[in-house]
This record gives sequence, C-alpha cells and structure tokens, in this order.
Amino acid sequence: MRLWLSDASKSMKTLLIQLISVFVERAKNEIDVLLPGYTHLQRAQPIRWSHWLLSYTWMLKRDVERLEQLTDRASVLPLGSGALAGNPFNIDRPFLAQELDFKEVSGNSMDAVSDRDFVAEFLFWGSLLSVHLSRWAEDLILYSTKEFSYVQLSDAYSTGSSLMPQKKNADSLELIRGKAGHMYGRCTGFMMTLKGVPSTYNKDLQEDKEAMFDVYDTLTGILQVATGVMSTLMIDKEKMKSALSPDMLATDIAYYLVRKGIPFREAHGQSGSCVALAEKKQCLLSELTLEDFKTVSEKFEDDILEVWNYENSVDQYSVYGGTGRSSVLQQINNIQQFLKDKAV
Amino acid sequence: MRLWLSDASKSMKTLLIQLISVFVERAKNEIDVLLPGYTHLQRAQPIRWSHWLLSYTWMLKRDVERLEQLTDRASVLPLGSGALAGNPFNIDRPFLAQELDFKEVSGNSMDAVSDRDFVAEFLFWGSLLSVHLSRWAEDLILYSTKEFSYVQLSDAYSTGSSLMPQKKNADSLELIRGKAGHMYGRCTGFMMTLKGVPSTYNKDLQEDKEAMFDVYDTLTGILQVATGVMSTLMIDKEKMKSALSPDMLATDIAYYLVRKGIPFREAHGQSGSCVALAEKKQCLLSELTLEDFKTVSEKFEDDILEVWNYENSVDQYSVYGGTGRSSVLQQINNIQQFLKDKAV
Amino acid sequence: MRLWLSDASKSMKTLLIQLISVFVERAKNEIDVLLPGYTHLQRAQPIRWSHWLLSYTWMLKRDVERLEQLTDRASVLPLGSGALAGNPFNIDRPFLAQELDFKEVSGNSMDAVSDRDFVAEFLFWGSLLSVHLSRWAEDLILYSTKEFSYVQLSDAYSTGSSLMPQKKNADSLELIRGKAGHMYGRCTGFMMTLKGVPSTYNKDLQEDKEAMFDVYDTLTGILQVATGVMSTLMIDKEKMKSALSPDMLATDIAYYLVRKGIPFREAHGQSGSCVALAEKKQCLLSELTLEDFKTVSEKFEDDILEVWNYENSVDQYSVYGGTGRSSVLQQINNIQQFLKDKAV
Amino acid sequence: MRLWLSDASKSMKTLLIQLISVFVERAKNEIDVLLPGYTHLQRAQPIRWSHWLLSYTWMLKRDVERLEQLTDRASVLPLGSGALAGNPFNIDRPFLAQELDFKEVSGNSMDAVSDRDFVAEFLFWGSLLSVHLSRWAEDLILYSTKEFSYVQLSDAYSTGSSLMPQKKNADSLELIRGKAGHMYGRCTGFMMTLKGVPSTYNKDLQEDKEAMFDVYDTLTGILQVATGVMSTLMIDKEKMKSALSPDMLATDIAYYLVRKGIPFREAHGQSGSCVALAEKKQCLLSELTLEDFKTVSEKFEDDILEVWNYENSVDQYSVYGGTGRSSVLQQINNIQQFLKDKAV
Repeated sequence: MRLWLSDASKSMKTLLIQLISVFVERAKNEIDVLLPGYTHLQRAQPIRWSHWLLSYTWMLKRDVERLEQLTDRASVLPLGSGALAGNPFNIDRPFLAQELDFKEVSGNSMDAVSDRDFVAEFLFWGSLLSVHLSRWAEDLILYSTKEFSYVQLSDAYSTGSSLMPQKKNADSLELIRGKAGHMYGRCTGFMMTLKGVPSTYNKDLQEDKEAMFDVYDTLTGILQVATGVMSTLMIDKEKMKSALSPDMLATDIAYYLVRKGIPFREAHGQSGSCVALAEKKQCLLSELTLEDFKTVSEKFEDDILEVWNYENSVDQYSVYGGTGRSSVLQQINNIQQFLKDKAV
Repeated sequence: MRLWLSDASKSMKTLLIQLISVFVERAKNEIDVLLPGYTHLQRAQPIRWSHWLLSYTWMLKRDVERLEQLTDRASVLPLGSGALAGNPFNIDRPFLAQELDFKEVSGNSMDAVSDRDFVAEFLFWGSLLSVHLSRWAEDLILYSTKEFSYVQLSDAYSTGSSLMPQKKNADSLELIRGKAGHMYGRCTGFMMTLKGVPSTYNKDLQEDKEAMFDVYDTLTGILQVATGVMSTLMIDKEKMKSALSPDMLATDIAYYLVRKGIPFREAHGQSGSCVALAEKKQCLLSELTLEDFKTVSEKFEDDILEVWNYENSVDQYSVYGGTGRSSVLQQINNIQQFLKDKAV
Repeated sequence: MRLWLSDASKSMKTLLIQLISVFVERAKNEIDVLLPGYTHLQRAQPIRWSHWLLSYTWMLKRDVERLEQLTDRASVLPLGSGALAGNPFNIDRPFLAQELDFKEVSGNSMDAVSDRDFVAEFLFWGSLLSVHLSRWAEDLILYSTKEFSYVQLSDAYSTGSSLMPQKKNADSLELIRGKAGHMYGRCTGFMMTLKGVPSTYNKDLQEDKEAMFDVYDTLTGILQVATGVMSTLMIDKEKMKSALSPDMLATDIAYYLVRKGIPFREAHGQSGSCVALAEKKQCLLSELTLEDFKTVSEKFEDDILEVWNYENSVDQYSVYGGTGRSSVLQQINNIQQFLKDKAV
Repeated sequence: MRLWLSDASKSMKTLLIQLISVFVERAKNEIDVLLPGYTHLQRAQPIRWSHWLLSYTWMLKRDVERLEQLTDRASVLPLGSGALAGNPFNIDRPFLAQELDFKEVSGNSMDAVSDRDFVAEFLFWGSLLSVHLSRWAEDLILYSTKEFSYVQLSDAYSTGSSLMPQKKNADSLELIRGKAGHMYGRCTGFMMTLKGVPSTYNKDLQEDKEAMFDVYDTLTGILQVATGVMSTLMIDKEKMKSALSPDMLATDIAYYLVRKGIPFREAHGQSGSCVALAEKKQCLLSELTLEDFKTVSEKFEDDILEVWNYENSVDQYSVYGGTGRSSVLQQINNIQQFLKDKAV
C-alpha cells in the first residue's frame, strides 16, 4: 500500500501540475480581461479575470505541498515487523528500505502492522482538494448561467438539447461539485472504521484499500476533466466588462480622498455622502459633476473624473497579492517558479 | 485566527510532548514486564509491555509532525487583501509579516480572504490524534476488565461504587474514546460547510471559529486526562505474565528450525506437526519431550527446551522495531531524541 | 432525554408549521407571478413563482412526518431497567408509562439502558431538514444577486454598507446554508461515537446530550430566521417576467404538434427544426411567421402564434403536481389541509 | 430508483427477519444459560444469555420499523413531472400510481425531479443498522477472546493458523464492525453532495445510485454473515457460569433488606457495610456467616444465605423487560408475534 501510494502520489502530482499550468497559462494570456469580483455573491470591486484564475492555483499549490508531505511521511518500511513482535533473523532493514526506495524504517512493529495514518491522510487530502474544486465548479456553474453569461463550456464538457440549443448544462462541473461529497464520504468511512479499534492488526483495517483506490481513480477523472474544462473554456469579455458599474468604485472615492490626505474614516464618510448625493440626484455616481463632489469636500479636484476608469481602479492594487497588473504578473512568476521546481 | 492557531499549536505541542514523555518514562522503567501481544484481540506472541507503550509514541510523534507542518503552512499573512481586490496604499506586507511573526505573505487576495484550509487541516489533525487515543483507550479499557486484569486505573480516573468496590469503571477512557467521534464531527461539519461555496468570502465560513475553539478545548482536556491516566496507571505484572502460555511460542519452534538450516516453509510445517502432537498427547507444547520433538525432525536438539523461556523469545526480536530489549532501548533513545529536538 | 425530546419535538413542529404557512400564504397571494424555472441552473421552462414556493413545503412536510415518527418511536419508557438487569420490585411499568405520557414500555433492560437510536434519528432528521433549507438558501442567494435580481431580502436579514448601498449581502441565508454542515457534523460525531461500543451503558454515550441540545437550539434559530426571511422577502415581478424568453417555449411547439396528432418523437424533431430555422434567420423563435412554420410542418396553423403567451404555457401543466394555476391551487389546498391536520 | 427501493426494501426486511429469528430461536433454547452482564465492560450483575441475545432483536425490530416507514414515504410516483414544470397532456397520474404500485402521486413537479430524501433516509437507515451490528460484533469479538472464552465462532466464520490452532480470529465480525464506517461514509458522501445544491435537478444528484446500490449489496452480505455467525456460534456455559461471583450480588443484599422493610437508601448503606466487612475479613461476600450479617443489621435472617443462588438472583427481575425467566419468555413471545406480523 505504501509503495502504491508513492506511485499514486507521483501521478496525482503530475495531474495537479497540469491543471495549475492551464490556470497560469490563461492568466498570462487573459490578463487584460476585467470583471466584477464578488463577495457574498454580490458585485464588490472590479478585478482581473487572471486574479480569479490564479486564486485557484494557490489552493492547488497547497494541495501539492500537502501531498508531498504525506507521501514523505508514508515512506516508512514496515517489512520486518512480523505479525506484531518484529523480526528474529537479523535482517538488514535499512538496506531493504533503501532498495525499495523508502525514506525510513518503522520504529515499532506493533505500530507498523496497524498504522493507517497515511491512508487517512490521503483520503482527507483528496477531500480537501475536491472541496477546492467544488468551489471552482460552483463559480463556473454560476458564470455560465444565462444571468451571468461570463463563460461558456465547450461542448465536450456540457450537455445540450436539440430543443433548447441555448441551454447548455455544465454537467461536468456539477459532477465535480458532487464528487466532493463522495470523496469526503470515503474519508469519513475510514475514520469511523478506525475509531476505537484495538491496537495492532484487526480485519476492520481492510477497508483501507477500496477507499484509497476509489479516491485515486475518482481524482484522476476529476483532475483530467477540470483540466479539460479550463483549457477549452470560452470567455465573454464584453459581458464581463459590461457588468462593471460605477457604484463598484465607491471605495475608490474614499481611496482618492485618503491620497489627498484625509484620514480614512473621514474619507469613508465623505465617499458615502457622494453615494447618497448620486442617489438623491438619481444619477450614476460617475455622472456627478466636479461641483457636486465639491459640495461634499473641497479636496475633490479635476482628477476625480479619472476615477471612473476601471483599468486604473484595478491597477491601484499593486501591492503583492492584489489584482493590479504588476502584482498579478508577480503572482504568475511565482507560480511558474513553483511549477518549475516541481517539474520532474 | 491564524495568529490564534500559532499559539494554540504551541500549546497542543507541549501537551503532546508531555504525554509522549510519560509513555517513554514508563517504557524505560517497566522494560522487564512481559505480556501477550494481540492481533485480532487474540493472544499472538509475547511482547514487552514497553513495546506496547512505545507503539503509541510513534503515532503521537506523527501527530506532532503533522501539527508542525500545518502550523507552518498556516503562517501566511492575509493582511493587505482588502475585501478581495488587494491593498491600494503600497503597504509593506513582508515587513508586517515579519513583525507579526508570519513566515510568508499571501499571494492572492481572493484566495486569502476565504482560505480556510488551515482550519480544515487543524480539525482533521485533531480528529486523527483523537482516533489514535481512541485506540489506546480501547486497549486500556480491555486491559482493565476483570477478564484481562492487566491494569488498574487510579481512582482519580475511574468511577467506583460503594456496593461494588471491585467494579471500577474506566469512565475517563470511555469519554476519550467517545470524543473521537465528537472531534471528527467537527471536521465533517466544516468540510460540508465549505463544499460548493462560491469563491472569496461568504458568511458560511463563519462556522470556522466555533469548531476550532471547541476542538482546541476538547483536545486540551483529553490530552491532560490521557497524561494523568498514563502516569498513575497501575499494572499487574503477575497477571500479565500468567497470561503467557507455551502455545504462543509455536512460531518460535519454527524459528528454531530455521536457525538449524531448515527452509522457512518446511520449518513452519514441522512446527505445526509439533503443535498437533501436543494436541494428540493432550499436553502443553512445552511438555513435549526431546524424544517427541525428534519424531518430527532430527534437527531438534537439547536446546529446544530453552525455547520455553519467554524472555528469550521476546529478545530474539532484536532487529530495530522489534520487541527485543535492545531494540526497545533503541526506540526509547530515538523517541527521547525526538523529545529533546522538540523541547522549547 | 426522551421526555425532553417529546417537548422539543412539539416545539420544532410548531416552527415548521409556521414556516410552511408562510410559504403557502405567499403562494396564494403571488400565484400570478411567473419566472424562469431552472434545471442545472439554466433557464428551462416558465413556471409560477408559487410553484417554486410550494416545492419547499413538500420537503418540509416530509420533515414533519419524519419528526412525528421518530418522536413516537422514542416514546418508550426505560424506567425499570435498573443498571442493566431490570427491576426486582414488581413495579407497574405500564402505569408509569401512562402517567409520564409514554406510548410503550421498553422490552429489554439491556437495550433500554443504551438505546440511543432516538438521538441518532433526531440528529439525522435535523440534518436532512437543514440540507433542505441549504438548498432553499442557495436559490434565494442566487435570486438576490445583481445578475438575477428576482428578490431582495429585507434589511433585517441582510447586511449592507454605506459605501455600497446597492450591495446587500444575504448573510442570514449564507449562515443557514453553512449550518447544514454544522448539523450533519453533530450527526456524524454521534454516529462515530456509537460505532463499535460494547452493549449496554458506556460513558461514551454521554456525547448524546450536547449534540441534541445544540441541534435543537440551532434549528430553533434557523427556522425562525427562515420564517422571517420568507415573510419579509420582496420580489421583483418585472425582473422575473423579463427573464422569460421565447426560446424557453421550444417544448411548447412540440406539445402543440402532439396535440395536432403528431407522434411525440416526430414532434420533437420538427420543433427542433423550428429552432434551427430561427437560428438561421437570426430571429427569435417567436418572430417566425406562420409561413416559416409551415415549411417545417403542414400541421402548423394560425393558433401557433398563441403559443408565445407565457400564461398559457404555464397553465397547460394542469395535471396535479404541475405549475398550471389549477394544479397549484390544488397543491395549496392539500398543504393547507395538512397544516390544519397538524395544528394543535 | 423508487421502484428499486421498494424491492430492495422487501429483500432487506426478509434478511432482517431471518436474523431476528436466529436470535429468538437461540434465546428460547438457551434460556437457562447465565453469564455476567456488563456495564462499562465491567461485570455488573448476573443475567440470562437469552437476555443479551434478545437485546439485539429490539434494535433490529426498530430497524425494520424504520425501513417500513421510509419505504412507504418513498412510494410516491414522480412520473408526470416532466423536466420540472409538470405534464401538459392530462395523463391520469393516480391510475399510473396504482398500476405501478405507488401509494401516492407527487404533489409538486419541481420537488419531484430532485427529491432524494428517500436515498438519504435509506443510507442513514443502513448506517444505523450497521452501527447496531458493530456493537453486536464488538461484544462477540470480546466474548471470543481467550480472556472471556464465552463463545467460539464456527470455522466458517473465523480464521485460524496451523501454527496457532488455539488462535481463532473473528475475521467475519471484525469486517462487520469495520463496515459500519463504510456505510456511514456513503451516507455522509451523499448528504454533503446534497448540501447547497440549487433546487430541481442538477447532475450532482447522480451520486445517489452508486451509494444506494453499494449500501444494499454490503448490507446483504453483512446480514447473511451475521445470521451465519449467530446460527453456528458455540457457547461455553461453564465458562460463563464460572465468571459469576458473589460480589456481583451486592445489590441483591440491598434488595433483600428492602424486602424486609428497610428504606432503599439505608439498605444500600448496610449492603455496603457487608461488602466492607467481607473485605476486612478477606473472604468472599458469600462466605460471611449469618452472625457477620447480624452485626450489620438485625433484619438479616437465615434466608440471606439463599441470596447466593444466581438463578434466584436473575429471576427476581421478573418485571417486563428484565432478565428473569418469566419476563424473558414474555419478550420472546412479543418478538415472535412481531415476526409473525411481518412475515409475508
């Protein structure tokens, strides 16, 4: 099982690296695309599409790291433990470990014959990865609705109907979302099996294989489909752009004032007054005149009108980790470096 | 939350180190005690009590390593992510990270505001640790039954009755066994909450705190009780010894023959013949005479009678990881070194 | 615990009845409102808003029935079981049962002292109810996005921001969605605790109380909030209506042909041809002329133009269970009858 | 699926009825066998072996009732729901329901196309049943240890070793105990899949089939094995009897005094004094003379010496539900009546 895991782990890592690569590749190519960023599923601030893409690479990067750690920890040779007491023939366990490519030999035969931590860790690892993908799937299912219309799945990954050609069901994504439950069910099953079992080997532990193989097979499928979806996904830049609106820039007014020296709390209040003013005048925030702004604060000047540029708005988040072009490029660099380090 | 985890993690580690220390201390002091080792809850081979004790230190050692890894991975500064787009004021995030004792800064603001991997990892970590302790509790509950009578819990950790003074319920251990379910329930709750939630922050994520605090508090209690139970547990060496019987040494006859040059498979068969012979003669395996043995194989000599020494039997498992005195001492050394490395 | 459950159950039932009542009340008042019905989150066919509302009453109705059944099954007097062997003083258990309002006396003292089926059943019951509400919450969270804009939560149940007055986060619904995980975590915790515990009483079982009380308290909160959300929710009929489009009526063309005597499979094909024709002519399906239709099938007549009436489309589903006015009214009657039967 | 469940349910019920029958049959035949009853795995009071056997029939009886209720609730015809809006051709759904042997027609097409309550209920039902069997397996695994030696599994259900013929591993029971985790894992997987999915049909729901079929197949195996184990199990009456000891009758002394008119609390205290006296004299409780007893209370008379009869002790629990012969016979009657009612 431990040898199997070592191989399985390599194969999982390759698939993860592929998926991350597709995200990064698109992030590089589509760096100019803007769309609303959401919190609570409500439009909050304009962001780069690349920023959304890259957000998933960080989750997957953590998944890769966890996988490496658990694989290392599982790399312990149990041979030489006998039924439970150990081996009486002076075999050279370190040599065997080396030959079989294990990092260590087990330190206690009773633990060795019943240690299934690596199984539990692998099942949980697969579950957390699946949960990440369930969130990604949820995002794309939403973005591919008629209401959002930001993306369209390629025909290979969606199901249509001759009667409703406009209706493309994101079946592949729904299956991935659903599989997160399946995976965690496997983890739960095994953890519950382990609970309260006396030490050393008991037949209950036999549950380990079916669970591991199933999680491995399912993940293999999911990761391939996810890679396929991401590399063939069509995006509608115009729809994304047209979903941006001046009211998403209310915070930018506050930032503007802060840059003019107003303390943040006060700037926030004055920005709120501008919003209220626009509401009262029944106009867009961006339709307020400089005079209108002046009634709120003397600090407003001509350049306030430049605030309504979404590109500018996005690029002000230039600190590392933000959605500005420079920091997005830095992110891409970092993830690419990570991919290079992990490449075999 | 990440700062809290960092502290919580230190505190958890201290408790784990204490518990491991108690196991090792007893393993050192009680190295001469023998008892039956069990697989499938059936008596299999004689082992050292210390070997049983130490088997749990390896599980707990892995728990410590996992805790360190997840704590490191959680040590990522999210500050500077804003609501989701990042920070527009050129703050020095690496400096902040250093000041607040974080190892890294987050690479993507959208990921940063909703990354709860560290919560899920912590909850699972606590669950796996609890499952280890549930197995340990199960062992001791069994060993403290009238039928086994190997150990007796101190009064502080058991409940008696004036009417049945001989009946001491291992309440503390039953509670620990039961808590494994509780802990994993928390993990399940949070994983299910995470599943399918759209990216960035959604109020669902608020479930994280209650779960983490509860797992931390419960584990604090469990680890303290476990340490208390282990440091006050009384053992009955005589009962343990008297549970050993010659039939547990049938494998030793095979090992004897192997040492005399018989191939293992053949040795195993001849050992079986000895067992059959004893059954036929309705005597203990150890009551067979040299003549009896000779009828099975010419290889048997005088020294076969030394096989019935349990000390010898146990000590033949001298390869690292086995229950022999030398390898148990080596185990103790290794765990003590581990404890020294982890001591703050 | 069993007595407590009996009371808790009444209180849960009252809250459920209230929630169902709010759904039915709105279904009655808003029966004229149409909106797209979704499968796979893609617009499929026009439906009545009342039909959506009522769909949840059927889930909740099943929840009420399950609650009644488990409460009845829990109504078993364990008194007279002693520690495990029974009672030696000839007490009148049926009389006690009657006095304490139990339906039955337990039949086996060993089972009685450790039977926690009613706890597990209650925890699972609460979980399934919560899962229903998580789906309802998900629907409303989507419907309250800018992109859908079908509904608006009242201020009491959402959180705004002075800076982004247009952004109303459906916090209450997100919390309800998240709580489904929490509830099922409790169920998992207890099931795992029960697994493999020896028969009769063991201290592990003590986990029952905290779980039950937490599930009861949480559900009380959730049900009250859900009732509050539903009774104050504002709907935007115009938005709903304007989301309907002729392409959602492609099936209606097939139904039209079936009514003219065309076999269903053939009708389906011809309807597909109409869709293709509209695509080719780059017009809406509803903009096809009678001549256009005639090129597909001679069966089309003047009355095909009446198909584009959404009211008519919806009302053709008049078989019980459908979204037609008559069958929706029948549903309302049935649910109201159910409420009347359950009213105390 | 609903039709499948209806059949599956019948088959499950038959297997359950068979298993219960085996328990009852043995309870009738072995009613004279006494053994210690345990709480907290500590010997508490003498009980009838039949009482232990019957305790499991009550759990299984509840499982049968739950199965019937969920099967009834699933017996709802969804046909006529279309994709989600209903049926436009005036089909006679009640007639279809009757023809297909459904109890009801669904009341809301949107609910009908995505209602999977019956799947969740079935998975949970199987989990709770499995948990019952895991407790039963745990009991028998313990009773078949060398230390308890109350029972012996037939060779068909255990695994031996030529080298250790005395060691018979209860593999079949360990597998059953382990499967409880597996089953609940399936339940967890599906519940997590359901959580937060938008209403009506989404492809996620496709997870239902694999889970149901697996639970059905696994349960079929488990129930057959359990029936096999129970019908071939050998018991060792002498071992059971010899595990009884006078100290398990301390409560009987209290009961004796109560029958002589002493209030319970006082009787309890005096019984404790007898226990203390025996400890002081370093004799068994049963070795105390009448004079010894008199030093504690004047109420003790000649007949106190009859207390040391285990048969008598057991039979005093004659109130329904207790371990006395009469009440055990009544239990048997009741379960047999239940079996008769459920027989097809």
